[in-house]
Amino acid sequence: MNLVIVGSVAFDTIETPAGRRDRIPGGSGTYASVAASFFTRPGLVSVAGQDFPREILALLSARNIDLIGLKIKRGKTLAWHGLYATDPNQRTTLKTDLNVWQDFQPVVPEPYRRAEIVFLSNLDPESHDDILSQMKKVKLVAMDTIRYWIETNPEALFEAIQKVDILFANDEEARLLSSEFNLVRAGRKLQSSGPRLIIVKKGEHGAMVFGEKFVFSVVANPCDNVVDPTGAGDAFAGAFLGYLASRGEFNRREIKKAAVYGNLVASLAIEDFGLAGLLQASPSDLIKRYQDFKKIVSF
Amino acid sequence: MNLVIVGSVAFDTIETPAGRRDRIPGGSGTYASVAASFFTRPGLVSVAGQDFPREILALLSARNIDLIGLKIKRGKTLAWHGLYATDPNQRTTLKTDLNVWQDFQPVVPEPYRRAEIVFLSNLDPESHDDILSQMKKVKLVAMDTIRYWIETNPEALFEAIQKVDILFANDEEARLLSSEFNLVRAGRKLQSSGPRLIIVKKGEHGAMVFGEKFVFSVVANPCDNVVDPTGAGDAFAGAFLGYLASRGEFNRREIKKAAVYGNLVASLAIEDFGLAGLLQASPSDLIKRYQDFKKIVSF
Repeated sequence: MNLVIVGSVAFDTIETPAGRRDRIPGGSGTYASVAASFFTRPGLVSVAGQDFPREILALLSARNIDLIGLKIKRGKTLAWHGLYATDPNQRTTLKTDLNVWQDFQPVVPEPYRRAEIVFLSNLDPESHDDILSQMKKVKLVAMDTIRYWIETNPEALFEAIQKVDILFANDEEARLLSSEFNLVRAGRKLQSSGPRLIIVKKGEHGAMVFGEKFVFSVVANPCDNVVDPTGAGDAFAGAFLGYLASRGEFNRREIKKAAVYGNLVASLAIEDFGLAGLLQASPSDLIKRYQDFKKIVSF
Repeated sequence: MNLVIVGSVAFDTIETPAGRRDRIPGGSGTYASVAASFFTRPGLVSVAGQDFPREILALLSARNIDLIGLKIKRGKTLAWHGLYATDPNQRTTLKTDLNVWQDFQPVVPEPYRRAEIVFLSNLDPESHDDILSQMKKVKLVAMDTIRYWIETNPEALFEAIQKVDILFANDEEARLLSSEFNLVRAGRKLQSSGPRLIIVKKGEHGAMVFGEKFVFSVVANPCDNVVDPTGAGDAFAGAFLGYLASRGEFNRREIKKAAVYGNLVASLAIEDFGLAGLLQASPSDLIKRYQDFKKIVSF
């Protein structure tokens, strides 16, 4: 176990121009774990209610995700309902029922505590210290956040950001966090606030990585059929960190490749509703996609 | 003379978050010519009024642009006034005075008529046939358009598009022309309508090229100081075609490189008001930018 992912497990109701699905499995922790599992065996720290289907848990286990950190609690699973406009970068949350996620106090199980990489995915920033204090050998702390924490608890959020090595943010969040519209300025400003690495995810426009003395920019994999953008950002982060966990190196070369894999795994995620795009793809599908992508961007 | 550019010469009044400039030289033909002149000696077919400054004409000549196709007519030069929002991809035209551009009937001077590449830049689509009938050896016809023609004369525009080899469109235009929001679908649909090559310019998000059996996608050069986006698209097209004219080849490899150069010359244009960004840059600045860009996108 070299990568621990702390994030939500949820039921998602999703409306996109391609259709609607009710109460399908999702959650940032789930997406990130499935994405990471292309490269490594991640451990998921999360909570679900008793209504969460056993078959899905079996599917995740079969996918090489360690679930001893996933608590099944009396009550209902977190439920989210979102609506996407024609522009897949525009989404509206119609409803969130936190349910068992409400009072979740993440406990990192003993076998996970010597992992070197931990991903704090969209958590209450005030919970970070407690989680990190449970880790014994951590070398890389990564976090992602959501608009909700930027708006409701910016002080705690900025304090949390200072303590991480890697910050993932989408374009909107990067702008809000930095008060800069220009994403290059936003990325540099965020980097100067602490993290060694800022990854700005731009959805259909790809991603930018602001590292120590380098910038890396990558287009999204051209996709003519965006079915469901849910989880694309979580999949990006999970694949990015899963790839790094599998390599054991944290240099410029590996960071760039991690971003490309993040990009490509995210492109798998959006091609079907929910987790289906990721679960249908095999490692060899991903290798094929990597080779095709190389051709699309090389000159 | 291997590249003929037919497009406007204008005075631009520009307001951006970085400031305001009144009546500075611009126009799609001017931007495209200056951009092309990094690679070749283009000929400009256009019209200006007697108020257009001689020093600017001398500057363009010194920049290796042939101006025998530029008519100086009694009257005033085309004048445009535009306003950019914080998002540089959003612009509003406040005023356009067509002036001498109003009744412009492009005449291709004799020495230009054996050029192999011609660029029809934002022209009335009904004027294309007349211009092309003056060319004797043309191999590649490229065009760009503007929202105005899409809205006022779509029939003539679609007829014109069928006859060109290369269509440049920004993301908004590509969506309007194809009735597809997804740019990959938009590009493919436009390609099926005739042109061998569709180039979708996405401003700060780079560009996509839809070729015969290939797609190429490239990020914009990361820029933390967008001063004035005016002319970026014209500069892209001018550099793209100037590069191709200098190579004499029209294969996948050269098309990709042309798009990268289009991208990079556009990134020079936006760093200062009007033509200053382009005019200040030397060929060696561009080579340096190419090398730096390679590092930013390679993995």
